[in-house]
Amino acid sequence: MKVRVGIVGGTGYTGVELLRILAQHPQARVTAITSRGEAGTRVDALFPNLRGFYDLAFSEPDPLRLADACDVVFFATPHGVAMDLAPQLLERGVKVIDLGADFRLRDPESFARWYGMDHRSRDWLAQAVYGLPETRRNEIREARLVANPGCYPTATQLGFLPLLERGLLDAQGLIADVKSGVSGAGRTARIPNLFCEAGDSFSAYAVAGHRHQPEIEQELSVWAGQEVLLTFVPHLTPMIRGIHATLYGRLSSPMDTAELQALFEARYQGEPFVDVLPAGSHPATRSVRGGNVCRIAVHQPRPGQIVVLSVIDNLVKGASGQAVQNMNLLFGLPEDAGLGALALLP
Amino acid sequence: MKVRVGIVGGTGYTGVELLRILAQHPQARVTAITSRGEAGTRVDALFPNLRGFYDLAFSEPDPLRLADACDVVFFATPHGVAMDLAPQLLERGVKVIDLGADFRLRDPESFARWYGMDHRSRDWLAQAVYGLPETRRNEIREARLVANPGCYPTATQLGFLPLLERGLLDAQGLIADVKSGVSGAGRTARIPNLFCEAGDSFSAYAVAGHRHQPEIEQELSVWAGQEVLLTFVPHLTPMIRGIHATLYGRLSSPMDTAELQALFEARYQGEPFVDVLPAGSHPATRSVRGGNVCRIAVHQPRPGQIVVLSVIDNLVKGASGQAVQNMNLLFGLPEDAGLGALALLP
Amino acid sequence: MKVRVGIVGGTGYTGVELLRILAQHPQARVTAITSRGEAGTRVDALFPNLRGFYDLAFSEPDPLRLADACDVVFFATPHGVAMDLAPQLLERGVKVIDLGADFRLRDPESFARWYGMDHRSRDWLAQAVYGLPETRRNEIREARLVANPGCYPTATQLGFLPLLERGLLDAQGLIADVKSGVSGAGRTARIPNLFCEAGDSFSAYAVAGHRHQPEIEQELSVWAGQEVLLTFVPHLTPMIRGIHATLYGRLSSPMDTAELQALFEARYQGEPFVDVLPAGSHPATRSVRGGNVCRIAVHQPRPGQIVVLSVIDNLVKGASGQAVQNMNLLFGLPEDAGLGALALLP
Amino acid sequence: MKVRVGIVGGTGYTGVELLRILAQHPQARVTAITSRGEAGTRVDALFPNLRGFYDLAFSEPDPLRLADACDVVFFATPHGVAMDLAPQLLERGVKVIDLGADFRLRDPESFARWYGMDHRSRDWLAQAVYGLPETRRNEIREARLVANPGCYPTATQLGFLPLLERGLLDAQGLIADVKSGVSGAGRTARIPNLFCEAGDSFSAYAVAGHRHQPEIEQELSVWAGQEVLLTFVPHLTPMIRGIHATLYGRLSSPMDTAELQALFEARYQGEPFVDVLPAGSHPATRSVRGGNVCRIAVHQPRPGQIVVLSVIDNLVKGASGQAVQNMNLLFGLPEDAGLGALALLP
Repeated sequence: MKVRVGIVGGTGYTGVELLRILAQHPQARVTAITSRGEAGTRVDALFPNLRGFYDLAFSEPDPLRLADACDVVFFATPHGVAMDLAPQLLERGVKVIDLGADFRLRDPESFARWYGMDHRSRDWLAQAVYGLPETRRNEIREARLVANPGCYPTATQLGFLPLLERGLLDAQGLIADVKSGVSGAGRTARIPNLFCEAGDSFSAYAVAGHRHQPEIEQELSVWAGQEVLLTFVPHLTPMIRGIHATLYGRLSSPMDTAELQALFEARYQGEPFVDVLPAGSHPATRSVRGGNVCRIAVHQPRPGQIVVLSVIDNLVKGASGQAVQNMNLLFGLPEDAGLGALALLP
Repeated sequence: MKVRVGIVGGTGYTGVELLRILAQHPQARVTAITSRGEAGTRVDALFPNLRGFYDLAFSEPDPLRLADACDVVFFATPHGVAMDLAPQLLERGVKVIDLGADFRLRDPESFARWYGMDHRSRDWLAQAVYGLPETRRNEIREARLVANPGCYPTATQLGFLPLLERGLLDAQGLIADVKSGVSGAGRTARIPNLFCEAGDSFSAYAVAGHRHQPEIEQELSVWAGQEVLLTFVPHLTPMIRGIHATLYGRLSSPMDTAELQALFEARYQGEPFVDVLPAGSHPATRSVRGGNVCRIAVHQPRPGQIVVLSVIDNLVKGASGQAVQNMNLLFGLPEDAGLGALALLP
Repeated sequence: MKVRVGIVGGTGYTGVELLRILAQHPQARVTAITSRGEAGTRVDALFPNLRGFYDLAFSEPDPLRLADACDVVFFATPHGVAMDLAPQLLERGVKVIDLGADFRLRDPESFARWYGMDHRSRDWLAQAVYGLPETRRNEIREARLVANPGCYPTATQLGFLPLLERGLLDAQGLIADVKSGVSGAGRTARIPNLFCEAGDSFSAYAVAGHRHQPEIEQELSVWAGQEVLLTFVPHLTPMIRGIHATLYGRLSSPMDTAELQALFEARYQGEPFVDVLPAGSHPATRSVRGGNVCRIAVHQPRPGQIVVLSVIDNLVKGASGQAVQNMNLLFGLPEDAGLGALALLP
Repeated sequence: MKVRVGIVGGTGYTGVELLRILAQHPQARVTAITSRGEAGTRVDALFPNLRGFYDLAFSEPDPLRLADACDVVFFATPHGVAMDLAPQLLERGVKVIDLGADFRLRDPESFARWYGMDHRSRDWLAQAVYGLPETRRNEIREARLVANPGCYPTATQLGFLPLLERGLLDAQGLIADVKSGVSGAGRTARIPNLFCEAGDSFSAYAVAGHRHQPEIEQELSVWAGQEVLLTFVPHLTPMIRGIHATLYGRLSSPMDTAELQALFEARYQGEPFVDVLPAGSHPATRSVRGGNVCRIAVHQPRPGQIVVLSVIDNLVKGASGQAVQNMNLLFGLPEDAGLGALALLP
């Protein structure tokens, strides 16, 4: 019997990406998808790549109907939506995976500071599991509510973890210089995201502070066993998909490059969706376009100075693919079910 | 038992695309891939999207070894290669699908004129089947040697066929204004294909004559039952994948738009890889990116003036996907085996 | 003394392009620029390429202040604005160049049909001069109100004119297959213009009818001396600037290719902004990026079948550059004043 | 009388950019341009944006003819060319501006190590002046041989200089995370620079060491008055032009953000081609596309942690524009002659 899946807020890029991935999942089936603005529209009218795969239309979000129709509901919504609606589903025994930010920050005060609103579901926040399988696989298996990580946090954590978990880096001086394709800004009609504004140009944004920074610091601090401080500078790059994190840290004691390489390979041995490249590599985002994998290379250009390069597809391992990976864990399915697609190159 | 597949000339974009598609084919397995220039290199060192899916290296092309290791061999080579090498495989009972141009033109004189070399395998040319399943499905099933259609010819034929087969168009005055992504030019280090030459610009090329024109005229003439003359103008558009054919013809007698729409829908009913869009649609190439489908819309902006819009992914339905579709037919497999992937959008 | 220039509606791409061009005009100076939405904002805060060149802020549109401050006012507004505001300026002796569509169609009924609103300034419409210098240079010199041509109409007319003026084409069967960069859609926050929607994809739009078609037919009919019927299919191509028109027509009597070439060269001899390329050429849009030139090549791939390739920068010769060219004519300045910039390549 | 300019190696992007800029220079005129591969070809046949501006063809490089025809010669050549040819011109009194790398590193051993060849012109190397006007304006005025800075070094130095000159940064822990458009890789037919390889993707390269790093360290060490150590990570971003440097440093003692801003503004007050943006800004590369300006913003996201954002057009301020700026200084012309063009936006 297939897992019955609902999607709330399916008109954005993470929504269509969930539909794309789930259309080929052997053990799941989308039974409901909601959108206030597009209720009544067929999903394949909005997203023509779905033609022939779905006979489904957007409906108004209705917790009772969702609870009836679904074993799990993905929230592909802006922050502030899931915290109100998810509890009504959870209380009816439906599992929830929130691709938004409502349940990522453990501390409701931090949430209020970074997202500009009070947290209205503190009980469920306390029960939410941060859904990075590479750190919390077993917790996720037992969870009812999964907070799917942000895109930058996924690429950044996977790059820093092998070193921080072992205490090998100066945890107070980390730098993440991260670059995102424009789909990270969502399917929202804003001038900065226009082809003629974002195209053929490159810029940083939000240098003064980005919401993914406290999320990364929170999680890395857990695994480092000490407070991690991160300088985090996001950039917009003129491509559709992909995140490239260039991560800088100082070794707390000398280590040769072969040891570094071995450390990364050992840490991710057996991980289905983390690929440590051979020493000296430079992963390109296109090597993960459409795939659920994170590719990582570690360098030491000067003694003690570490540079980690980490790439993901922001819509797959950075959002919808990781969400399906979490669903697989929640329901005891093979972790890679539905996620076997190779990246599209070129 | 899986079909054992060989690929000759696998370092180009149709080569990596064959590998991507076949990695997920449930009834086929790549057992050999050749390249003179890259012999000894692992395929996933050249194409990192393949990491984790292949444990295979390029080898020198050797007909005997290929014949031993393979049930079918794909040629992803420039014209002139398959005509020499394929006969050696065919004679040993290996089936051949040529993604190049050697066996597309029935008339060796025409081949010589357009490709600048004599045809050196006229016997096999006479036995080759032109591999457009939508017109020659049964012939393909019985074939030993399939000439996989060109990318422009696939999009153009599928757009014109419903009208020409019924004698509804003035066959002497067809126009195909076609636009291709840059991957159509191959993975060859030439200045016009550089990012800074082809990017952020649009131009026509080869207005005086392009090799795909006689191929289209040959096939359309068969199905029109009369000589078809086509004005064919190809253009390069700054995107990676995709072909958009804008096709112009004059109706030989009046027909209303609803009839036109019905004609197209009837013609392609049941075709697994042709999708006739609702009346009034404008297919975008991204709706087929990475998928093996051709999406078509038919318009009549003035009485008697037909405009057909037809889009494919040049590397999939325009090359490697169609080649796998042909392989499925050759071996009695489900026609869509391995070809179920949805297009990647955005 | 410099011509004092006003710009109404300066927050779009034609607005910033007027500012860019006029910053280097030796005999003109922008004295006012209006925007309801951005009144009070400095122009260089909105468009950082202007930093160091302007000490000017957007103001509310006020006809009296504009009339005081300006010798000429450019309207870079959606249709419907200039027809109300321009008369108030014209009556005060200010010359007007409308980059919008209000005064392009001679027939107010046609305007109403294509633009969905009545024409509210029929008297001025009757006095407006269509501002294509290559056909109406002397009329423009004497005009008070210039209707600046659309982008597609400029490229299309310049390509067809040499043949149509001489009665050499079948005027009832013209086809214009035109392709535009995304800036043609303006600086408007709409989903189809997002980087992730328009990028890496190609599609047609408005096949059923586009407002530039009657404009082209109107003008070409004048110069052909008979009714011209045009099939017009616009496409969106993933680049920022540029229009490429591929124009198809049938010769009414045979003509060899050298004659064709000579005809085009003679027609545009001495034209400062039309460049007829050598026979066999394929102009790329990047060869005109940022410049006020139209480059044209004429081909005859089959006897009697003409293909003209015509490229412009839609924001320069297709809008703001041509508007400045018209201003120069209106004020008796050298026609190329301020328009000498070379295209940016790459 | 105009300065007579020669260009050696004019078939690359810095060559065509010199031609574009010099076509509008009021006091200079290109009298010779050389290329072995294209001798005899008109420059406007290779670069159609030049049509109508030049009546010049490439010639074989011949020092005697160049010395006769030119007051100054630009070398737009790969390293190793200028060191052999420039001395023959210099000895005849011709001034030389090398856009390549032959005269940038003061230490010939360092040159040999980074460029893999001995320096064959050590005498002239000792006399060369590093051509960054913002640091060495007066030296350049007196120079005979100018080493035009690299593109990354220009953006990086201008970003770090205000702080390093005052000793305000920990000079041993600088990081430059730099991103370049693809034109930085030149007009060379190499697979990694193809549209389908570099497009819609992002990657780092040369993390182990890049030739611009010693150049930056050399110059910054001069102005810091101590040895500067830089971690330098270059990236390729899918756009044509532009460099974005994201620069990280630690303050050696606390400083508030307003002081920082004031420091940058004071340092570049009066500089014609450096623009310090208002506090909180994020410069985009498109704001300098085609212009000779460097735009800079300084941030302090955490106390003591500095982030400087610095953008240039790699072909203008990063190469040919700066070279013309240097020529202006060499010949006592207004420093901004020929360099007044605004950036092209969008």
